[in-house]
Amino acid sequence: MIISIAASALVTYTAPKAAGSGIPLIKAYLNGVKIPGLLRLRTLIAKGLGVILSLLGGLLCGKEGPMVHSGSIIAAGFGRGRLPFCGKDCLLFEELRSDHEIRDLVSGGAAAGVSAAFGAPVGGTLFSVEEAASFWSNELTWRVVFAAMTATFFTNLFLSATIGHFTQLSSPGLVRFDIFQEDMAFDLIEFPIFVLMGVIGGLIGALFVIINYKLTVFRYRYVRKKWMMVAETAFIAMATALAGFLLIYSLNDCTTAEPYDEHHATIAKVFCKGNHEHNALTSLFLSTPESTLKGLLHDKAGSYSITTLCIFLVVFFFLSVWTYGLSISSGVFIPCLTIGAVWGRLLGIGCMKLFPHLIPINVFINNSIYLSIYLSIYLSIYLSIYTHKTNNLGKFALLGAASQLGGIVRTTVSIMVILVECTGDITLGLPLMMVLIISKWVGDFFSTGLYEMNIHVAGIPMLPSEPPPMFEDVKASDIMSKPVVCVHPICSVGKLVDLLKVETSCGFPVVDFPDERPTLNISRKRPETYGKMKGLILKSQLLVLLKYRIFAAEGAVQPRCLKSAKFRDFYNVNFTISDLNITDSDRECVMDLRKYMANNPFTVHSTCSLPRLFRLFRGLGLRHLIIVNDRNEVTGMVSRKDLAKFRAEAKRGIVQIETLEISDL
Amino acid sequence: MIISIAASALVTYTAPKAAGSGIPLIKAYLNGVKIPGLLRLRTLIAKGLGVILSLLGGLLCGKEGPMVHSGSIIAAGFGRGRLPFCGKDCLLFEELRSDHEIRDLVSGGAAAGVSAAFGAPVGGTLFSVEEAASFWSNELTWRVVFAAMTATFFTNLFLSATIGHFTQLSSPGLVRFDIFQEDMAFDLIEFPIFVLMGVIGGLIGALFVIINYKLTVFRYRYVRKKWMMVAETAFIAMATALAGFLLIYSLNDCTTAEPYDEHHATIAKVFCKGNHEHNALTSLFLSTPESTLKGLLHDKAGSYSITTLCIFLVVFFFLSVWTYGLSISSGVFIPCLTIGAVWGRLLGIGCMKLFPHLIPINVFINNSIYLSIYLSIYLSIYLSIYTHKTNNLGKFALLGAASQLGGIVRTTVSIMVILVECTGDITLGLPLMMVLIISKWVGDFFSTGLYEMNIHVAGIPMLPSEPPPMFEDVKASDIMSKPVVCVHPICSVGKLVDLLKVETSCGFPVVDFPDERPTLNISRKRPETYGKMKGLILKSQLLVLLKYRIFAAEGAVQPRCLKSAKFRDFYNVNFTISDLNITDSDRECVMDLRKYMANNPFTVHSTCSLPRLFRLFRGLGLRHLIIVNDRNEVTGMVSRKDLAKFRAEAKRGIVQIETLEISDL
Repeated sequence: MIISIAASALVTYTAPKAAGSGIPLIKAYLNGVKIPGLLRLRTLIAKGLGVILSLLGGLLCGKEGPMVHSGSIIAAGFGRGRLPFCGKDCLLFEELRSDHEIRDLVSGGAAAGVSAAFGAPVGGTLFSVEEAASFWSNELTWRVVFAAMTATFFTNLFLSATIGHFTQLSSPGLVRFDIFQEDMAFDLIEFPIFVLMGVIGGLIGALFVIINYKLTVFRYRYVRKKWMMVAETAFIAMATALAGFLLIYSLNDCTTAEPYDEHHATIAKVFCKGNHEHNALTSLFLSTPESTLKGLLHDKAGSYSITTLCIFLVVFFFLSVWTYGLSISSGVFIPCLTIGAVWGRLLGIGCMKLFPHLIPINVFINNSIYLSIYLSIYLSIYLSIYTHKTNNLGKFALLGAASQLGGIVRTTVSIMVILVECTGDITLGLPLMMVLIISKWVGDFFSTGLYEMNIHVAGIPMLPSEPPPMFEDVKASDIMSKPVVCVHPICSVGKLVDLLKVETSCGFPVVDFPDERPTLNISRKRPETYGKMKGLILKSQLLVLLKYRIFAAEGAVQPRCLKSAKFRDFYNVNFTISDLNITDSDRECVMDLRKYMANNPFTVHSTCSLPRLFRLFRGLGLRHLIIVNDRNEVTGMVSRKDLAKFRAEAKRGIVQIETLEISDL
Repeated sequence: MIISIAASALVTYTAPKAAGSGIPLIKAYLNGVKIPGLLRLRTLIAKGLGVILSLLGGLLCGKEGPMVHSGSIIAAGFGRGRLPFCGKDCLLFEELRSDHEIRDLVSGGAAAGVSAAFGAPVGGTLFSVEEAASFWSNELTWRVVFAAMTATFFTNLFLSATIGHFTQLSSPGLVRFDIFQEDMAFDLIEFPIFVLMGVIGGLIGALFVIINYKLTVFRYRYVRKKWMMVAETAFIAMATALAGFLLIYSLNDCTTAEPYDEHHATIAKVFCKGNHEHNALTSLFLSTPESTLKGLLHDKAGSYSITTLCIFLVVFFFLSVWTYGLSISSGVFIPCLTIGAVWGRLLGIGCMKLFPHLIPINVFINNSIYLSIYLSIYLSIYLSIYTHKTNNLGKFALLGAASQLGGIVRTTVSIMVILVECTGDITLGLPLMMVLIISKWVGDFFSTGLYEMNIHVAGIPMLPSEPPPMFEDVKASDIMSKPVVCVHPICSVGKLVDLLKVETSCGFPVVDFPDERPTLNISRKRPETYGKMKGLILKSQLLVLLKYRIFAAEGAVQPRCLKSAKFRDFYNVNFTISDLNITDSDRECVMDLRKYMANNPFTVHSTCSLPRLFRLFRGLGLRHLIIVNDRNEVTGMVSRKDLAKFRAEAKRGIVQIETLEISDL
C-alpha cells in the first residue's frame, strides 16, 4: 500500500498527464490535438518511475502503455527539448523544431516503446500505424522501423548482457512469452473453436470497456481532489493484496505439477503437506502479471484446476477493470492478455474433457438434427485435440489472450504481429488474426474500444478518419464561432497587449478595414463580417515581436526585420505578455504585421458543408480554419473542437448521433 | 520464342497498360492520378494470362507485380464494375461507387495480391502501406488485413487440396521458400557481414536501376511501334534460352550433390559420366525462377561451384535487367531475390573458405594495424561460421536475396515481413531489417528505386509525401494554367455543347458576371480574372444533365431536379457529347447549374506558395485547384501535373532540382 501510494502521489502531484496508459493521449496528440504537459521531461520521469512503483505495489497493470508514452516523450525531446544548463540558444536539432517533425518523431517514439517492451520491431511499427498515428507517409515507415529496430536491439544487448553474454542477443524485449515447445500446427477443423474464442474475447472485452466507462465517469464526477485519487489507489492496492491472500488461504488448492521455471520463487505450500506439493493459486497471485501470463501460456495441462482458474479469472477481471483509470502510470496490455489466457486455458481444458466415451449416444439416437449439431461440434473439438496428439493448452491460452486484448483495445494486425514476434512462432498467424478480427467485430457491436472510450470521456477533440455520417446539411456558418478577434495589418501596440492578456486563441486573422482608423483596429462583436481577410498571425509570433520591440511610433520607420530563425528559437518556450516590459509610451506605437503574417491561411466559404470541413481538418491536420464570405471577408472561425462535437457512434447496430462536450485541456 | 511472342502480343495489342509489373501504375493510381485503362477487365485478362505465358516462355520474371495489379483490378471491380449482361441499372454495390471507396478497395486488392503470392497477409498489408498507398486510415488497416488474410486462406485451401488434403492448410502462398532445416540463430559478431551484405545489395541494386533506366529511355525513344515491342520480347526470349543452353553445354560442371527435392526434374547429366552426377548449371537454368531461388536457399554447401555461381550471377543479372520493362506482364521480385541469393551464397562460400590454417601469420607479425584489422574481420567471420557449427549457406542466401530486392525496389519492412512469413522463421528478423535498411540507404545514394524510376520516366504526375525543398518562393500564380474555361450559373446549352466538344478538362468553375448577358457566358482569354467564383461543375455532371435534358427555354421554368443517384449511375460510364442528340432548338435553351454545382470547391489565393499548394493536393488527394484573387474571382487553375513538374532528387549526396515533362496518359 505504501509503494502504491507513492506511485499514485508521484503521478498525481507532479505530472497528472502521466496517469493511465498514455496511449490515448499520444493518439490524440498525433491526431493534431495540443495537450499541454504531455511531452515534458517531468511527465517522463513520473511515467517511468511511476510504472516501476505501480508494478512493485502489486497493482494489476502492465508497462507497455507507459513505454509507448516514454518513448514518445524522448522522441519529442529531440525536436522540442533544450539542454537545461546552456540556455535558450543551445538547441539540439534546430531543423526538427516544427510541429510536423515532432509529430513524426512521436510516431517513431511510440513504435520504439512497443518495440522495446515486447521485442517486436514490426509489431511496434504496425501499432504506430494502426493505433497511434493519424498521418503517415512512406518515408516515415522505414524511419519508424529503424527506430523500433534500434530500440529492440539495445534492449536485447543490455538484457543479454545482464542475463548471459551480450553478443548472444537472446532477450529482445522486456516482456517475452518464450518459444512454445509444443507443436502449434492447426487444422481447418479447429476453426469453429477459433470463432468461438473470438466471440468470447469480444464479449468480455465489451464488458470490460463498459464497466470501465461507468467507473471513469464516476471518477470524473466524484474523485476530483488529488488526495482522493491517491486514496483510491491505496484502497485498490489493499483490495488486490487482500483478495490474493484471502483466496490463497481459504482455498486448499494443492497441486504437484511443476510450474514453468520462471516463477519458481513465488510458489508457496500454504496448507499443502506433500513434499512436492504447492498451492496453485500462489503461482498466479504472487507473481508479476507478466510471469503469471507466462505460466498460463507454458504450464503443462493439469497445473491449474478448473476451480483455481475460474476464481482467478473473476477476481483478476474485476481488479484490472478497477485498476485501469487510476491516477497511476499503468498499462493495460498484460492484464488483458492474462484474462484471455485464463479463459483460453479453461476453454482448452473444456475441450479436452469431451472424451469419446462421454457421448451419450442413446440420447441422440432419435433426434438427428441435435445429433448432427452435437457430432459436428464434437468432431471439430475431438479432431483439433487428438489429431495433434498433444495436450496443447498453450495454444488455447495464447489465442484467448489475443482475443481478449483485441476485444478490449480493438487493435488487430499489430497485436497479432506483436504476439508472433513475442513467441517467435509464426504458425498461429492466421488463427490469431481470425480471433482478433472476430473479437473486434463483436466488441465494436457493443462498445467502442478502451482507448476511444478514454478519449471520448476526457472530451478530447479527436477527429476520426472519416467524417460522421448524416451531417451533410450542417454548414460552416452553423458551427463557426463568433465573434472572431481580428487585428489590423498596422496595429497599435497597446491594443495588441490588451488583446494578448485576454485572448486564449492561438492565432488571429489579420483583416483590412479601409474605412477605419488604425487605432480602432481590434474589432469585436461586429454584426456581420470582420473585414477583408489579409493573413493570419500567431499569438506566439506577436509575443516574440513584442519581446524584440519590433514597433515604432505611428508614421515612423519600422525597425529592422526579424528573421524567421528568431521565431524558431522561441518554439516551445512559454512566456506570456506579463513577462514583457511594455511601457505606456510603447503602447502608443504601432506594429507592422504585414512582413510576419502568414499570407495565405486556409480559408473556406461559410456555406461549406461539415464533411468537407472535416476532410480539410483531417487531411491537413489543422487546428483552426477561418471562414470567409463571398467577398473574402472574415465571418467566423471553426476550431477542431467545434468539429469534434459531432460524433456518430454505432452501438448494437444502431448509429447514434451525438454532440459531445469538449473540455478545455 | 513462340510462347513469348504470344505473351507480348497479348499485352501489347489488347491492353498496353498490362505491361510490366503494374506496381508503379497502381502506386500512381493510389496517389490520385487517373490512369485510363488501368483497372479494366481486359487488362485483368491480359495481365493474368500474360504472366502465365511469360513464365512459360522462360523469361526471367516473377508473378508478384501482376498479382498485385490483378488483385487491384478485381477489388476495383466491386466499385466500378457492372455486370455486362444486365445493363447499366444492374450495379453490384452502389454505395462503393465513388473514387474514394475505390481507392480504398484498390489498396486492399494490392495487399491481397501480395498476400496470395507469398502467403504473407501481414507482409501484403505492409506492402500496401509502404509501397502502394498514399492515403491510409486506421479503419483501412483491419479491412486490408482481412482481405489479405482471406486471400491467403483461400490460396492455402485450394493449393492444399491440390497437393494433399484441404484441411491441412499447408501451402499458404503460390511462392514459398519452405522452412529452413538449419539453425538460423545469429550472433552480434556477424553484424559486420550483414552490413557488408547490405552495401553489396544496395550497389548492385543501384546498378540494376541505372541500367534499366537507360534501357527504358531507349525503349521510349526507339521501340515505339507495337511490332517492335513484340520483336524485342522474342529476341530476349531467344537470348535467354541460348545463354542457358550454351553455358550448360560449354561448361563441364558436374557435381554429385543431391539437389533440393523441388527441382529434381530439371537436372540433366549433359557430359557427366558418373551415375549420380549431373550438371549443376542445369538445375539453375532449366527451372522456373522460383524453383532456382528455392534451390539456392536450401541446397547443401557444395551443390554449386564458385564458377557456376559467378557465371550464373552475371548472365542472370543482365538478362533480368533486360527483361524488366518489356511489353509483357512480368514481376521483378523473384529475379531480384534470385540475384541476391546467388551472391549471398557466394559470400557465404567465401567466408567458409577462410579457414584458420590459411592465416599467413608471418606476413602480419610486424604490422600491427593491418593485423588487427585482418584479425577482427577474420574473427567475426570465423565465429559466425563456427560458433554455430553449421555450414549454413541458406542464411547467407536469404540475407543476400533480401538485400538485393531491397536495393532494387527500396522497400524495407514489407520485404522483411514477406520473407519472414515465406520462410516461417522469425529468427532472422533483425538481420533482415538491417540489410534492407542499409541496402536502401546505399541504393538511394546512387539512384531512385525501380518503381519510382518507372513512374518518373513514364511522366506520371505523382506527388511525393513531402513538397520538394527550395521552392518556397514559387507562387500559385507562377504555375497556374491560364486561361481557365468558366461557365455561367445559367448557361446556354449551345455554348455548353460546344465547350464539351473541345475541352478535355474534368471540371469547370462556375462564375458570375453580373454585368454580362447569359449568352456571352463562356469566357476565354480574358485578361485578368474570369469572374466571381460560385462553384464547380464536373464535365461528367454536365453530360448527364444534357442527357436527361435538364434545360428549358430562357425564362421558362426549369425541369424537375435530377437526383444525385442518377449521377452515380453514370459513374465510370464512358459517353461523349456526340452520343447525345442535341437539336438546334435545344441549343437555344439555358441550363440552371446552381442546383448541381459543388458550392464550395477548394480554392486558394494566387499568392499561395508551392509547398502549401503541394500539401493541399497531397493531403486531400486533389486533381485540380482553382486559384482566386482577393475578391474571390477566378484567376487560374492548378492541376496535379503543374505541381508534379517540380521535383527534387538527391543523387550522390547532391540535391538536384528539375522540372519534369509530364505526359498525357
